[in-house]
Amino acid sequence: MMEINPCNSHVNGGSSIPSKVSRKTKPDDTIVDINGIKVGGSEIIVIAGPCAIESREQLFNTARSVKTGGAKILRGGAFKPRSSPYNFQGMGEEGLKLLDIIRKETGLPVVTEVMDTRQVELVSGYADMLQIGSRNMQNFPLLKEAGMCRKPILLKRGMMSTIEEFLLAAEYILNQGNDQIILCERGIRTFETSTRNTLDLSAVPMLKRLTHLPVIIDPSHGTGLRWMVPAMAKAAVAVGADGLIMEVHYKPEEALCDGQQSLNPDEFDRLMLDLKKIAQAVGREISLPAHPSV
Amino acid sequence: MMEINPCNSHVNGGSSIPSKVSRKTKPDDTIVDINGIKVGGSEIIVIAGPCAIESREQLFNTARSVKTGGAKILRGGAFKPRSSPYNFQGMGEEGLKLLDIIRKETGLPVVTEVMDTRQVELVSGYADMLQIGSRNMQNFPLLKEAGMCRKPILLKRGMMSTIEEFLLAAEYILNQGNDQIILCERGIRTFETSTRNTLDLSAVPMLKRLTHLPVIIDPSHGTGLRWMVPAMAKAAVAVGADGLIMEVHYKPEEALCDGQQSLNPDEFDRLMLDLKKIAQAVGREISLPAHPSV
Amino acid sequence: MMEINPCNSHVNGGSSIPSKVSRKTKPDDTIVDINGIKVGGSEIIVIAGPCAIESREQLFNTARSVKTGGAKILRGGAFKPRSSPYNFQGMGEEGLKLLDIIRKETGLPVVTEVMDTRQVELVSGYADMLQIGSRNMQNFPLLKEAGMCRKPILLKRGMMSTIEEFLLAAEYILNQGNDQIILCERGIRTFETSTRNTLDLSAVPMLKRLTHLPVIIDPSHGTGLRWMVPAMAKAAVAVGADGLIMEVHYKPEEALCDGQQSLNPDEFDRLMLDLKKIAQAVGREISLPAHPSV
Amino acid sequence: MMEINPCNSHVNGGSSIPSKVSRKTKPDDTIVDINGIKVGGSEIIVIAGPCAIESREQLFNTARSVKTGGAKILRGGAFKPRSSPYNFQGMGEEGLKLLDIIRKETGLPVVTEVMDTRQVELVSGYADMLQIGSRNMQNFPLLKEAGMCRKPILLKRGMMSTIEEFLLAAEYILNQGNDQIILCERGIRTFETSTRNTLDLSAVPMLKRLTHLPVIIDPSHGTGLRWMVPAMAKAAVAVGADGLIMEVHYKPEEALCDGQQSLNPDEFDRLMLDLKKIAQAVGREISLPAHPSV
Repeated sequence: MMEINPCNSHVNGGSSIPSKVSRKTKPDDTIVDINGIKVGGSEIIVIAGPCAIESREQLFNTARSVKTGGAKILRGGAFKPRSSPYNFQGMGEEGLKLLDIIRKETGLPVVTEVMDTRQVELVSGYADMLQIGSRNMQNFPLLKEAGMCRKPILLKRGMMSTIEEFLLAAEYILNQGNDQIILCERGIRTFETSTRNTLDLSAVPMLKRLTHLPVIIDPSHGTGLRWMVPAMAKAAVAVGADGLIMEVHYKPEEALCDGQQSLNPDEFDRLMLDLKKIAQAVGREISLPAHPSV
Repeated sequence: MMEINPCNSHVNGGSSIPSKVSRKTKPDDTIVDINGIKVGGSEIIVIAGPCAIESREQLFNTARSVKTGGAKILRGGAFKPRSSPYNFQGMGEEGLKLLDIIRKETGLPVVTEVMDTRQVELVSGYADMLQIGSRNMQNFPLLKEAGMCRKPILLKRGMMSTIEEFLLAAEYILNQGNDQIILCERGIRTFETSTRNTLDLSAVPMLKRLTHLPVIIDPSHGTGLRWMVPAMAKAAVAVGADGLIMEVHYKPEEALCDGQQSLNPDEFDRLMLDLKKIAQAVGREISLPAHPSV
Repeated sequence: MMEINPCNSHVNGGSSIPSKVSRKTKPDDTIVDINGIKVGGSEIIVIAGPCAIESREQLFNTARSVKTGGAKILRGGAFKPRSSPYNFQGMGEEGLKLLDIIRKETGLPVVTEVMDTRQVELVSGYADMLQIGSRNMQNFPLLKEAGMCRKPILLKRGMMSTIEEFLLAAEYILNQGNDQIILCERGIRTFETSTRNTLDLSAVPMLKRLTHLPVIIDPSHGTGLRWMVPAMAKAAVAVGADGLIMEVHYKPEEALCDGQQSLNPDEFDRLMLDLKKIAQAVGREISLPAHPSV
Repeated sequence: MMEINPCNSHVNGGSSIPSKVSRKTKPDDTIVDINGIKVGGSEIIVIAGPCAIESREQLFNTARSVKTGGAKILRGGAFKPRSSPYNFQGMGEEGLKLLDIIRKETGLPVVTEVMDTRQVELVSGYADMLQIGSRNMQNFPLLKEAGMCRKPILLKRGMMSTIEEFLLAAEYILNQGNDQIILCERGIRTFETSTRNTLDLSAVPMLKRLTHLPVIIDPSHGTGLRWMVPAMAKAAVAVGADGLIMEVHYKPEEALCDGQQSLNPDEFDRLMLDLKKIAQAVGREISLPAHPSV
């Protein structure tokens, strides 16, 4: 059913769940297939890579290392939403071309952000999955475009959005005929300032109850603190997330963006081994390459 | 100057002000000229009209009544950002054409929202000022397009955006060469649920200190409560706002959107008389038509 | 009536108003009488003085100057709630004795904070009104003690408390038989960090609608910024507050606490003249001494 | 070291850590000993029991069942902080006496809340650990009394208190000579309303890094939703908490308080088995009775 009064949706918080995303409409879990990698089944899928694509060397080295560590999908931003116009805005199409090359080399499907309705076609030509970032969660024309394209969508929760608004944003995409949507909790804005955002892990069981769509966690943006990412990633697996998206950089201290929240390859490798144990403890699995580097 | 670390901009809250919007760069107040109506000078300008354009009759009747009441600019949404895809999405270009007709009849300049980079040219052809709504405050491609068009921009603060992020969003527009920007505080999201949002009136003195751009208040979205709009509008004038934007509907009980926060024409007329007194008490002015209807 | 489920009171936000504080129970405004000074009538009452009593000289000089400026009640803390145990904790009973001396000299009733059930009797012996601070708004044993004492109570809203919880805290006092309660909004905690708190002026019309108790505003704690206090004080008068409580220090730069948000006597005098004009514009009044110092 | 400016502690968020609670002052973990039960070591300790003590039958049946399930400490409120004065306020000393009886029978140490400085001595006579609830986290006289008593203290984070304020509250206790303090994260207040509070699990790694005190999680108040408690309890163990405190009621549907967030004995038993597996996966342990009931 639909919300009666959208103006009060903040107050009603989750009480009304729109139709196509609702588990009542479709009780079975939706499995999202990103070029053969399935999200929403028993395996927990890890997406990793740099915040922004900065150079061929940076992207390729990072991509190879996250593959070795056990990532199943590569992330990397070509178009970057930045609070200030004077910050690095991404490599644009040149970055997309680099993604395409390393995708072929590693075999890892790639996900990258799209910020503008006019970019959807271009980005769809290179990426296996399109990311709609938290600042665009209520960019309704972009949601509609995403709903009309034939690629899976990684939809991040707005840092100021309720669970209900998050589901309604997904409904915009579903309503255009695209049901390949992964929901991602990435931290909400609260009064607390010791972390970049407050990672709302309760969003996982809440969303899993309300919708059939898979749910993943971004502990990198959710904390903003490299040393805290492993603890929150473990909690995310324990709480029932279907996957993780994490920032990894082969040299975090040289990153143009988000270096302070990016793991280095060694940290990533160790974390994957720890996550595998927790996945088993909760009846899920994480498959790692035969010879991990650690 | 630029922010050092955009990732921590939330924590640093307002400590770093970007260059072109800063009052340090330009100490004098910017006056924004919307087809002859000047915002940012001694006169307090009131923008009024319906949330959404619903019909010729609704728009025209409301427009005539707000002109009589003392509004200097007409508002009305043709493209509406709605939380749910199943809510009324606006009349689109047909609404813009209605705006154009009533603009000519009343002589009131019009402001209407633009949500998509692809709409900027179309909307610019009809409107005297473009509104960028709170959900798009960090839609950076849209901000850049707004910066390249030759129309004044009404930029609304995101409901969970800091003052610093708000100024950086304006900087995106200014950085493209458009300095005709009005900033609008419209309520932030907090834990309190008795009002739709929490109208942050302290944003007015804070912004007036940090930037040369004019600042207005939206008490309709800021409260979500029709009966509370007058009290908050008065406070906005007393606190130093350069203007107000308010929802007025000739029949609020029949509105397709936001009826519960829209004033009817009689309420609007009475409020304007009250606001005029407060404006005088703080050394500003509000000019009303010779024969107000109340 | 009572709330059905206190555990969900946050979500229900203001929908259920407890009985004795409700305007439905008692439609007429309650006038609180603090030793002859009446709060809740047509006159807007200003309470002023230092955050903490630091010395005889500091208290007496400040008290004399706020009286000259037009304050009707003197504030000053003897027992101070401080986030850190290593900060100045107040002068204790010695401070209360100083309050008593200056009260007799100036004729100004005094209000001071009580933090502990064991202090209620002691503080009641010196003060004309007891303040329960925001950190103790849900200190229920203290509320009950306040309800049993025969002094008016100045109850500050918790920085994390909803309007409904605020009213329920007042209900604790009323339920013990004390109806001499002034409610004070003093800023809530939000994500915004450019001000110390976010002063929620919409609390004034909301509370005035829901309860018969008078409502005042604390722009000093609400902003934390001395230069912003005048703007927010003006807005508070315009929005309908029955009074203001402000920090004034005869030498703010030497204050042991809250100096950065305290007005000096000249600033206070000028502000009172401005507030008088706004009070008149909204049909209220502020009476000033015959020969103000400015 | 101390905070420079307590008024800005919200903004500085965690940047300054007071001395006695700091891990810099004492690098080794503090182990809190509650009558032989050690919190802060390798074993994860579970505290369970009813929100409020309602009757002999309710307390005793619940206590026996949580012991069977693997709880090591019994919780139960005799003095209850309730938002409304018309809600059940607890059994008072009669409840304390029941706690004492069941403690002797089961051998489980008991923790119960103290709300008033005048109650500290009384409650200390019955309880093995005193709880200071979230509404009293900045009740400084109570913190000082707790610091002077010779019982371990369970200090809950205020629902809108920063990490820094939380540590400063603990510093009040430590500064009086009592270092037997357990910190408890129990959910913070945010804009999200689908859960009762937002459980901030990132507080665990943050606190463990900043202080030597043990940290536990309260998933019952943190979510307010019985069905969500198991998922968040699992996440708490994975994230590194030293323990959990959970509401269990032998008949949740008949509870006078918090029934909707209380587990029944069967749910508790199953959860303990699940938690044991996760504890092992993260290198910790949970010891269960030889013959669990499930």
